[in-house]
Amino acid sequence: MDKTYRSIKVIGFDADDTLWVNETYFREAEQEFCNLLNKFETPNKIDQELFKMEMKNLEYYGYGVKGFILSMVEMALELSNNTISNLTIAKIIDIGKDMINKPVELLDGVENVLKTLSNKYRLILVTKGDLLDQERKLEKSGLINFFHHIEVLSDKKEVNYTKLLRHLDIKPSEFLMIGNSLKSDVLPLINIGAEAIHVPFHTTWAHEEVPVNVHDNATYLTVSSLNDIIQLMS
Amino acid sequence: MDKTYRSIKVIGFDADDTLWVNETYFREAEQEFCNLLNKFETPNKIDQELFKMEMKNLEYYGYGVKGFILSMVEMALELSNNTISNLTIAKIIDIGKDMINKPVELLDGVENVLKTLSNKYRLILVTKGDLLDQERKLEKSGLINFFHHIEVLSDKKEVNYTKLLRHLDIKPSEFLMIGNSLKSDVLPLINIGAEAIHVPFHTTWAHEEVPVNVHDNATYLTVSSLNDIIQLMS
Repeated sequence: MDKTYRSIKVIGFDADDTLWVNETYFREAEQEFCNLLNKFETPNKIDQELFKMEMKNLEYYGYGVKGFILSMVEMALELSNNTISNLTIAKIIDIGKDMINKPVELLDGVENVLKTLSNKYRLILVTKGDLLDQERKLEKSGLINFFHHIEVLSDKKEVNYTKLLRHLDIKPSEFLMIGNSLKSDVLPLINIGAEAIHVPFHTTWAHEEVPVNVHDNATYLTVSSLNDIIQLMS
Repeated sequence: MDKTYRSIKVIGFDADDTLWVNETYFREAEQEFCNLLNKFETPNKIDQELFKMEMKNLEYYGYGVKGFILSMVEMALELSNNTISNLTIAKIIDIGKDMINKPVELLDGVENVLKTLSNKYRLILVTKGDLLDQERKLEKSGLINFFHHIEVLSDKKEVNYTKLLRHLDIKPSEFLMIGNSLKSDVLPLINIGAEAIHVPFHTTWAHEEVPVNVHDNATYLTVSSLNDIIQLMS
């Protein structure tokens, strides 16, 4: 094991796009949304405008599918200059309900990694977004018993992690976070003196992307698959 | 102090309609919604149908304002036979955003009660609904420092309370819950061997109402104001 990780006692896992597929479903939903509005704008323009609307609404709705549905409805009204049909609005709501009903598709090797690591470390799940939605996904995933604690945060900034570690009585130096988002799962941890390993997912939501200079000074490992963690931590 | 409460070490408070006004804002929103749809149906019918829609959508959206907005939009499409104007849909979304932006109005005596009780007991906040929304309200309330722990649950059933008490290492016999909802804040606690005091709010959401026979055997105190708790627990 790399000496950096010798002090680690607790490992935190992000959920969406780290343990199971999530962003893919948002990309598919955006595609369907573009198809519904294709007589008003190009897909590229619709994507851009929808993202802006989501960012504008983030302070009201936070993360998760419900806010995404509401942003799509609002976007449809705006992009169509208030000429969108009731039928299309109903279809947009259905896109959202379909997302909520998606099965949970575990990423490669997840169960084995959690099983192996849980023999040596205390594992916790640290996710953000909609409480009910995350609980439902965890339930469907069959992974709940691997975790000593489940935390759904409204955001994943330094302050949220600091509070969480204090609440669970974990020293930053004993904590390693593993996730797909540099912005949410890696950099805030490095900044509070904990460790983090980045496991990129093939798709990243624009909101989770960080400019290169933001993490120039951060030291963290990037691995290509969750499976690589087993060797690193054994 | 009543002998029942001698073993109490931790007091849990519900938030919405126990510490601050909430249901009133939903009633006002429903009123505005009825006004927007008054050419399609009577207010009474609209209220009934909206409630049914909320119940149908509860499994998808859970509790909170975002699901409520989505249910209003879906209801408007349905009640108007898909003839609702884009403008009205935009207004419905605005009703929701206005709800999210409401100031937090503390109920009578709340600060004094929390301050007094916090000298003798560990206080925790136990609420359900939308995570971000509840955090935001707590922030606005100025009450956060009275609480040792904040828990936002996706539902308030026996299983949720049992998990919470286990997680916080609190024996049911040491726990007293105080809240306005018999269904969510009182009966589940009695059923798991904890104590509960009912402080009714003048308005109760139909979903939180329980038939009389459900709580025939439960023993709990009802007080007319949170202020009465001080004397009971001192």
